[in-house]
Order: sequence, then C-alpha cells, then structure tokens
Amino acid sequence: MQDIVTGLEELLGPEVVTRAGDVPEAYRHDWSGLTPVEPLALLRPRDTGGVSAALRFCNAHGVGVVPQGGRSGISGGAMPVAGAVVLSLDRLNRIEEVDPQMATLTCGAGVVLEKAQQAAVEAGLMLAVDLGARGSCTVGGVISTNAGGNQVIRYGMAREHVLGLEVVLADGTVVTALNKMLKNNAGLDLKQMFIGTEGLLGVVTRAVMRLQPRPPHTATAFLGLADTAAVIDMLARARAALGPQLTSFEVMWPSFFHHMSEGTGIGSPLTGRHGVYVVIEASGFAEGGARAALEACLEAALEAGTVEDAVIAANSREERGLWAVRESVAEFARVVGPIIAFDVGIPLMRMDEAVRRCESGIAARWPGALALSYGHIGDSNLHLVVSVPSAGKNQPETEVKKLVYGIVREMAGTISAEHGIGLIKRDYLAYSRSPEEIATMRAIKAALDPKGILNPGKVLSS
Amino acid sequence: MQDIVTGLEELLGPEVVTRAGDVPEAYRHDWSGLTPVEPLALLRPRDTGGVSAALRFCNAHGVGVVPQGGRSGISGGAMPVAGAVVLSLDRLNRIEEVDPQMATLTCGAGVVLEKAQQAAVEAGLMLAVDLGARGSCTVGGVISTNAGGNQVIRYGMAREHVLGLEVVLADGTVVTALNKMLKNNAGLDLKQMFIGTEGLLGVVTRAVMRLQPRPPHTATAFLGLADTAAVIDMLARARAALGPQLTSFEVMWPSFFHHMSEGTGIGSPLTGRHGVYVVIEASGFAEGGARAALEACLEAALEAGTVEDAVIAANSREERGLWAVRESVAEFARVVGPIIAFDVGIPLMRMDEAVRRCESGIAARWPGALALSYGHIGDSNLHLVVSVPSAGKNQPETEVKKLVYGIVREMAGTISAEHGIGLIKRDYLAYSRSPEEIATMRAIKAALDPKGILNPGKVLSS
Repeated sequence: MQDIVTGLEELLGPEVVTRAGDVPEAYRHDWSGLTPVEPLALLRPRDTGGVSAALRFCNAHGVGVVPQGGRSGISGGAMPVAGAVVLSLDRLNRIEEVDPQMATLTCGAGVVLEKAQQAAVEAGLMLAVDLGARGSCTVGGVISTNAGGNQVIRYGMAREHVLGLEVVLADGTVVTALNKMLKNNAGLDLKQMFIGTEGLLGVVTRAVMRLQPRPPHTATAFLGLADTAAVIDMLARARAALGPQLTSFEVMWPSFFHHMSEGTGIGSPLTGRHGVYVVIEASGFAEGGARAALEACLEAALEAGTVEDAVIAANSREERGLWAVRESVAEFARVVGPIIAFDVGIPLMRMDEAVRRCESGIAARWPGALALSYGHIGDSNLHLVVSVPSAGKNQPETEVKKLVYGIVREMAGTISAEHGIGLIKRDYLAYSRSPEEIATMRAIKAALDPKGILNPGKVLSS
Repeated sequence: MQDIVTGLEELLGPEVVTRAGDVPEAYRHDWSGLTPVEPLALLRPRDTGGVSAALRFCNAHGVGVVPQGGRSGISGGAMPVAGAVVLSLDRLNRIEEVDPQMATLTCGAGVVLEKAQQAAVEAGLMLAVDLGARGSCTVGGVISTNAGGNQVIRYGMAREHVLGLEVVLADGTVVTALNKMLKNNAGLDLKQMFIGTEGLLGVVTRAVMRLQPRPPHTATAFLGLADTAAVIDMLARARAALGPQLTSFEVMWPSFFHHMSEGTGIGSPLTGRHGVYVVIEASGFAEGGARAALEACLEAALEAGTVEDAVIAANSREERGLWAVRESVAEFARVVGPIIAFDVGIPLMRMDEAVRRCESGIAARWPGALALSYGHIGDSNLHLVVSVPSAGKNQPETEVKKLVYGIVREMAGTISAEHGIGLIKRDYLAYSRSPEEIATMRAIKAALDPKGILNPGKVLSS
C-alpha cells in the first residue's frame, strides 16, 4: 500500500498527497456522526487534470476512491473507507463565470454553495438551491447528492438547477459537457447519470448551474391547524392561490413543535395549542403581491375552518421569528441529546398515519423516548428525530430504523427523500427499491466503474 | 423470419400481432418525412405484461424492436426498421389516477397528451407539458423524447414533469418505479435513464406525471425590436420583471416573420417593419397581475429604447391573433413547399451571429433559397427552416445540414434542442458531443441492452 501512496506522490506531486497519519481530522469524517476513518491517503488535486490522473492511477491499481465535497452530508456518503484514498475537490474552488444573458454560473466542484449564491446575487440573479449547510457544502457535493432544502416545492431539487457538468470517470476519462442551454436533446443527457449518484459513477469537477430571477418581495405566515388532513387541504389551497409564489410549506407536528419551542425557549407565535403547525413562505415580483395573495388565501382558509389560527409577519424580523422553531434543528444536540434522524418520504394520503404509527410505535417500545416529527410536507418529506434518553450514547439505532423503515416500506415511501443513502441507509435500500431497480443500478455501476473503485461500499452493498 | 412472427403470434395472441403486408400505413412512418418502412410485424400489446413478453422473446431471438408512441416526432426516432418489429404502446391508453393531493397523474404510455392535459384540468390542475402535436403525441413518447414546447422557459422540458416511471428493459425485466413524491433520493434515480433516450435503454409503459396549479390569468404582447441584441436585453428585462409569470418568450426574425405573415395572409400586429419580432406571454394567479407586470415591463423597455413598438392583447381573441404568425408553422408545406427543418441550440451571445451566418451562407450557396429563422430564444433554441425552391422535392439536405451543423459546432451549440436525434441527425451527433460523451453513451447502452435490440440504428450509429 505504501507503494501506491508513493506512486501517487510521484504522479501528482507531494503537495497534493497527504499520507495516512498526517490527514487532518476534518477529512476523516462527514456530518453523519460515524466514527472517523483514516484513509490510505488524502488527495487534493488543483484541477481536472489532477483528478483525472489520480483516478486513472487508482483504477489501474484497483484502489478505492472516496470523493469529498464539503463533508456536510449526514448519510456517510463522504466517509473515508479504510484502504481507499479520499479525493477532495476543495481546491477546485474557482467561480469561472457568471453569464447574466444565459442566466448561468460556471464553477469548480469545490466552490462553497454560499459563495456561488453570492456571485449570482451580485449579477442580479439567484441560485435557487439552498440548504442549512450552505456555508460549508460545495456545489459538487450538492450535485452529487441531488440536495433539497426548504424551497424544493418551488424550485425543485439540485438536479433541476444543473445545466452542464464536467465529470471524470473511474478510468480517468474526462467527460466535459458544460452545456449552458436550457434545451439539449442531442443523445443521452449524461449529466443525469452523475446527479444524485453519490460519486458512484464519476467525480464531478465543474458545473454550469442555472440561475433564476430573484423575487424581491416575501411574505411569511405561521398557522395552527387541527390535524394533518387540514394541512393537506391547506397545501392544496396554497398551491392554487399562490402558484409559483409558494416558496415553502413546512409542517411541524406537536411532538416537534412543543418540544423544541419550549426546549429552546423560543416559544410559539400563536397563543393556543393546535394539532399541527405550518410555516408558509410566499415570494413575488410585484410589491405587496405575495403578501396580498397570502392574506387572501389565509382569510378564505380561516373562514372555511381549514385553519384555526394564523399570523403573518409584518417585517423581515418577524419573518425570522416565524421560522425560528423550524430552524432550531441545529439545537437538537443541546435540547434533545443523542438522536437517530430520519429523512423519509411518505405519500401524502398516508402521512398522518405514518406520523402516528412511528410516534406511537416508538413510545410503546421505548417508554420515555422522544419522537419529533416535522418536514417539508409539500414534497412529501417527513423528518423524524428519535431519541431514547435512557440509552444515552448507545441509541438503539438498528431497532428504531427497522421500525420506521418498515412503516415506510409498507406505505410505498422512500427511506431517503433528500439526504441520500451513503453508508447509513445502504442496508435498507431494498425497503424502498425493488430487486429489479437495484439490479439495474448495479448494471449501470458495473458499466461505468467496472472495477468498483468509486466510493466503494456506499449506496449499494458489495 | 416467419418463424419469429409465428412465435410472437403464439406468445402474444393473434390480435396483438399484425404481420408485414397487413401493417396499417400509419405505423410505417412518423412525421419525419422519411420514406415509409414495412416492419417485420406490428405488436400492439394490451398491458405491461404483453410488452415484457414481447421484449423477452425479441431479445432471446435477437430481433430489433422499434417503440412507437403517437409517431409525431420529426427526427425519425419512431421510424420502423426493416427486419425489426414495431412495438406500439397505443393500447396502454388508460388514465389510471389523478391525485389532487399529491398533484400527480398516473397513466399508461399510450395516453394522448391532450387527454392527460384534460384530465388534469378536470381536477383543477395542469399538466404543463404542451406542444403542437398534443392531439396525437403520447405521454410515453413525450417522456422518451424529453419533449419541449412553447412553455419550457417557465415549466421546463418533459423531464421535469416526470415523477415516476414503469419501464420494460430489453430483456423483458419490468422496472416499476411509479414514485409520486417530489423527492426521492434512494439510490440512482433510474427514471432519468429513460427520459429523452428515445427508446434506446428501455420501453416506458406507465408514468406518474407532476401536475401544477393553473394560472387563470394571461397577458400576451407582440413586440418589434431593432436587433437580436435588443431581444436579449428584453429577455433579461422580462425575466427580472415577470419572474415565473414569464411563460413564453418567442422570437421571429424578419426572414420568418415577413415570409409567413405575407404568405399566409395573416399580416402583422404592428404597422412598421422591425429587425426582430417577439411574442411574450405572461400568466399569473392574481387578476390583472400578469398584465400589469407585463405593461410596466414594456413601458420601461419602450422608454429605454429596447423596444421599438409593442401591442398588448385586450382579450383572448387578440391573444390568439398575436400568436398567429408564430403558430403558422403548420402551413410550411403550403406557403414554403418542401423544407429542411432545423432545431438547434445556440448560446445566446452568438445567436445573432448564427442566424446571420446561416441565412447568408444559404443565400450565397443556393440563390433564391429561403432560410426562415424563429425559435424559443429564452431556451437558446433556434428553429431554422430552409427551402431551395429550384430543387423541388430533391432538397439538398446533406449539404444544408453540413453548413448549418458546422456553424452550430463552431459555436458550441446543439444539433438538437428539443426534437431529439432519431435517424435524421444520427450521423451528426459528433457535431455536438465529444468522443468521450459518445463512448459513455455507448457504454450505458451496452449495459442495459447488450444485444442492441432496442430501436436499432437510432441516435447512435452501429
């Protein structure tokens, strides 16, 4: 193995290769909470040519390669693998171009999302991929995991923002397809094979992202409703009344809302207690337009009895206030302790049943356990956070996963709505995908990475 | 070969199989204008099981299979191949479900697009894929070709409307992934491999389509501008002022506009002559909102000198009037005669140069030739229609293609923005795709269809 590392040093230069033992702690793990792993070496090439040379060498020698972006994923997709090298894209961090005519941004995979967002804003446009990790996740990571966020209901997942890609295949072949056009049906749209595939089929080195006009006016409301059925009715009303002005539609069940609003001391924007809480954000291009539409929609919903109580923010400070409990998820460690976090998708008509069965199933099996439910209900995405206080750091992860994923399977949901499979959901993939689907995934993997060097052991079990 | 057909009859039943000689004329060609071809047999299975049985049999016997939807494609992707069977999906024509909560429509591949659109409207929603062939193209065909249309700038290509698919692979394996959720990152998103791949990797049998709220209010304007640079400025203005209210932004250069407005007798909505003409459509959810935004945007553009003249439709009759010349493309045969039609994409900053070089290059080489330019400029999509009157039915297709595609290649454009490659652009694929891209396409094709039975000879040359 030391010969391999020496070979890489000779090929790429010593400043690109860090040997095991000297690898900084940050590169030894992601945000999954898994135990850090020391890779064979850390490679930090400066350009596509370096990525290509590294992959060609590793492929020839059968050495596994774990691509890393900002390492903010929580499914373990960027976790190093013993005996494999880590290939960090963090030096490919140049914003190459913002083209206001085409409304595109071209950049290296290692550009931090927030920097790309800022460059778009400076050009009077918006990169409408946004998530909590914006300050550390990278454009390449966002693409490779098809990241979601709070605005998917309006702008879609990362996939919908990618116009062109440069990718390096397992054997070092550079596929440059930095398309900037909205339409390009010249044969297979290869970029689709690399978006959301967690580095299994190739390594993204550069990207062309689609930019959008930025709606300058926003309006935010906080709602209390009787039950999930009322929430689904409200979602249909909001869609119909707001159309593309509907930017976010977030739901919090009492388990999450009361625990976090009290635990953090943030409190509730409403005086009474309700069966479910919703944050709606609208945005628009005409001054007052989004607000007027949101107000009219809420008035009709109050009158019809769909909504029990609601408040609309009067200014941006109040807007942040209405989001505060929803955004308190960064406080889980302090308020809840060790957690087992889920990111499942449930078809809407069974969402209520799923929440009830998960929460009651966990309460029955682990008395005193917490099961906090919230999510992007407009996208059918339920986040569930479980904690068994009596278990301390040894949370009964496998048993809780089997319970929750069993319910997801029964309801034809997905075990991963937006966070990907990585390492921690790999052994549950069959809960959401059929044998035919998994066999087809393997066939494509075998075609593009016949030696299986790319992100070994992730997504598909070996 | 007769043994093959007999075997298919025994397997699928005589009412599913039509032998060569009895195949109705409609199944022997698509709208490409290519000479009809008699297939070995026509198969019209009634369900996914029939499609699977047919493919398993054909794969075992190495018989080519050409999938057909509504046969309205103009690139020859649905043209029969001698010695291969045609697999029509037209009997898979059931709308299975419209789910207003999830905002989805689930249907068979053979459902005509317009019927799916109507079912969505009846549920108070909209299937926002729309194109001229809506009355004959099918949902499966729209998906398999990643169809575009006049509203791509707002709603994206067909790909963005597909949530789930059922696909039959070359060997008859049925991959059922009828996902209804906006988010599903559980491993590879296999449906992406079958959208826009023109039947090369599998046959779409059922689909879940995403529905949208339907903006009830529209506003349409017709503009005269000095040149393409002004059009690009106007596009940026419209994007910024209208945001998602901008539904269409169509451009017609004088070559197209004057020839068609005079040839059809439709005339111009404007009194004077201009360097370029644009149709803008806006749509919105608040009464008068889209119109007010469009008016304000046009006023500012007139004041800044971006626009020379403009008219806004007062009612839906006038709206249709403003679209009339743009939609007169169905009259090409009558007004222009035999044509060579292009569907290329050009990065915006070179669009003006592309139009000028194509038009003047053709005029110089074929005196008296027509070269009419129009397109979806918001999507970088240029349609160019060429006719050499003196050549009659023997249009110099190859020479004209080489000239136009040569310019496209030089400008890093695409030889197919929305119509696909099929048969008629196959030999030009390398004008828009690199050797590495084409090799990767072939690797994926070989993985999913190792015997090469699916739509043989299309997209990739053998």
